[in-house]
Amino acid sequence: MDKHKTKASAGKISRRTLLGGVIAAAVLPVNNLFASQRSPQDFLPLAPEDPTKVPGQGPSPLGKRSPFESPVRKPSDISSRTPLQDMHGTITPSDLHFERHHAGIPTIDPAIHELLIHGLVETPIKFTLADLKKFPSVTRICFIECAGNFRTGKEEMTPQDILGLTSQSEWTGVMLSTLFNEVGIDPSAKWFLAEGSDAAVMTRTIPLSKAWDDAMVVYAQNGEAIRPEQGYPMRLLLPGFEGNMNIKWLRRIKLSDEPYMTREETSKYTYPVKDRIRMFSFELDARSIIIYPAYPAKINKGYVQIRGIAWSGRGKVEKVEVSTDRGQTWQIANLQEPVLSKAHTYFRYEWNWDGDATEILSRVTDETGYLQPTLQQLIEARGPDISGYHMNPVTAWKINKDGTVLFKAEPLK
Amino acid sequence: MDKHKTKASAGKISRRTLLGGVIAAAVLPVNNLFASQRSPQDFLPLAPEDPTKVPGQGPSPLGKRSPFESPVRKPSDISSRTPLQDMHGTITPSDLHFERHHAGIPTIDPAIHELLIHGLVETPIKFTLADLKKFPSVTRICFIECAGNFRTGKEEMTPQDILGLTSQSEWTGVMLSTLFNEVGIDPSAKWFLAEGSDAAVMTRTIPLSKAWDDAMVVYAQNGEAIRPEQGYPMRLLLPGFEGNMNIKWLRRIKLSDEPYMTREETSKYTYPVKDRIRMFSFELDARSIIIYPAYPAKINKGYVQIRGIAWSGRGKVEKVEVSTDRGQTWQIANLQEPVLSKAHTYFRYEWNWDGDATEILSRVTDETGYLQPTLQQLIEARGPDISGYHMNPVTAWKINKDGTVLFKAEPLK
Repeated sequence: MDKHKTKASAGKISRRTLLGGVIAAAVLPVNNLFASQRSPQDFLPLAPEDPTKVPGQGPSPLGKRSPFESPVRKPSDISSRTPLQDMHGTITPSDLHFERHHAGIPTIDPAIHELLIHGLVETPIKFTLADLKKFPSVTRICFIECAGNFRTGKEEMTPQDILGLTSQSEWTGVMLSTLFNEVGIDPSAKWFLAEGSDAAVMTRTIPLSKAWDDAMVVYAQNGEAIRPEQGYPMRLLLPGFEGNMNIKWLRRIKLSDEPYMTREETSKYTYPVKDRIRMFSFELDARSIIIYPAYPAKINKGYVQIRGIAWSGRGKVEKVEVSTDRGQTWQIANLQEPVLSKAHTYFRYEWNWDGDATEILSRVTDETGYLQPTLQQLIEARGPDISGYHMNPVTAWKINKDGTVLFKAEPLK
Repeated sequence: MDKHKTKASAGKISRRTLLGGVIAAAVLPVNNLFASQRSPQDFLPLAPEDPTKVPGQGPSPLGKRSPFESPVRKPSDISSRTPLQDMHGTITPSDLHFERHHAGIPTIDPAIHELLIHGLVETPIKFTLADLKKFPSVTRICFIECAGNFRTGKEEMTPQDILGLTSQSEWTGVMLSTLFNEVGIDPSAKWFLAEGSDAAVMTRTIPLSKAWDDAMVVYAQNGEAIRPEQGYPMRLLLPGFEGNMNIKWLRRIKLSDEPYMTREETSKYTYPVKDRIRMFSFELDARSIIIYPAYPAKINKGYVQIRGIAWSGRGKVEKVEVSTDRGQTWQIANLQEPVLSKAHTYFRYEWNWDGDATEILSRVTDETGYLQPTLQQLIEARGPDISGYHMNPVTAWKINKDGTVLFKAEPLK
């Protein structure tokens, strides 16, 4: 079976039931092809009644969205969120990639910018962007996610509100190991500090093993130059690791034999686990979310395609299960092939809604065998001072009898 | 090995030779971290000298490119071309996807637009966009290419000029077979006519077998709603088939037992092959092109990463070979994993240029065993009245002693 098809065979869905009431309305006598019943206020001056009678706009240097489409991020003071509920497929349009900046986006001249690699190395080197582009390049589709990605508290929350601090791009750049081979790493080195060029001078310490694994310095996003909000002209990409470690506007890497206790590491990005402080919790745990039906959608009785995304910082999604009876029973969802490591994976499940109120949920198992926990399990594991980091509970949507959908916002305590 | 890495092991490249003269300039004493020698006119007001001293712009609803980046298509009267030479990776940013419209881009209200499927069917049905989104959806990364994609004639031509009528997106929509199962196809049907909503009312006839293979009706491009230039709100997607058959602004499909001789089919999109007219030449033949180094790049002696894209309308790329000695000998290039069917595949080859004038070439073999032909082979196969369609010859770049690069524009006769 072609890899692009979903794993389970779709089969033939009964004609009468798939569209429910829509079919009866849509079957027309063939001599009445394009008649539509519209009231005058339905006619938007933007769209001619008959597009075949109006020559359209010609080709242009740069495309635009339809005037009928206006997806936006939701900005706050330091972040903005991807509209996950509007996303089909898994590539996030670059101008909708989430943001999190502690001191705004710097404007950097790519001809001047340099990346210095020094410390416990044989030969410290300063690389320009042009230098990086001379090295063997590599491309990878993977997600980036903020370690604090999870909000709850209200029923009227969209997937964007709950989990919008994650996005996916096709990244291109050079393997960090290639650069480390250039400078020559001292055998005593165990960690490296990565530093950015923004006014916050964001720094994080990363174990050296990640450099020999799959760390990259990337300069291209979805085919073209990386965007300023994502770190132009270059950022550190650590597939599967907390977003804050993927230092944007990368300007310096220093090899060391002990972790640096930088400001960000000792204050914001540690969190309690049962009387201990969990530090250096690099990999993001597996999680999934149904993005449709989700608030504020309204569904009809009959066939509904439940769809969402699942991912893991530790590797590939192994399976996604969906429950349509409040978590009592679970069924396997289809995964969109190809399933990539440390990448948002689209899942789909065909549901025949009988019209009764219920809750729908999803849960992911990744290739390490890790199963996405319930909120209850997380609370028990983390203790009473549970923080906002690495919160990846199974989430549920409440389906009301009238077809409206609300987020099941469970309390954190 | 992780799938995202290139197939051949990169190996350790000799430190002294990889960057050539750059290393000597870039090694600095560590107490002189960020000194740069710049003349006053190099300082653009857009970029502060020290970005860490200037708070940057905060998060926003919609992102923008860096002011230092301005990739554009090259529009003509009916088409515009993707800047292939600026593309790293294989996803084409949606606003840079190539265009070809015979009567401009219609503005269509998605709430009004309908797709009628009728003819030799059990039950003709009109589908709205909302209807389509209820069906099981599928996502696929694949290319679209104009059947006339190839220009030659001058040495000063970029990859965009030569082959810019091809782009790649992550497409999401519904399998055409799903819709055909809904209406029920009469056993006597062999073909279907697809019709668009633009002022040209573009029509093509497609063999029914493609519907049972991998044809789709897509409504999403790179995660979000398809762009008007690519067919908003829905288009036909026939992976690997000539671009003109992938009808944009799709409004009607009629099932028939014989091919329709529509205007476009009998005039523009047929071409001669040795005294016969080749019609219905649906699949695009395999092709490749080096996008760097290409005109107008200038390279230095030493390591150069030759990179480009290869694809086939018949399936996966099997291998790409690169020659750096005018075609006398060939070496296998690395293919970026995962290699997808009917999709642009990035290839890379590490070349150590000795500084002598030469020509570099690439050629692709697809999974059917088809090998990209030379221009000479195409001329012999097609005859003296060779047309501009399905022209997929191996191309070469001339490398001059001073490192400048020119297109080797061979005559068509």
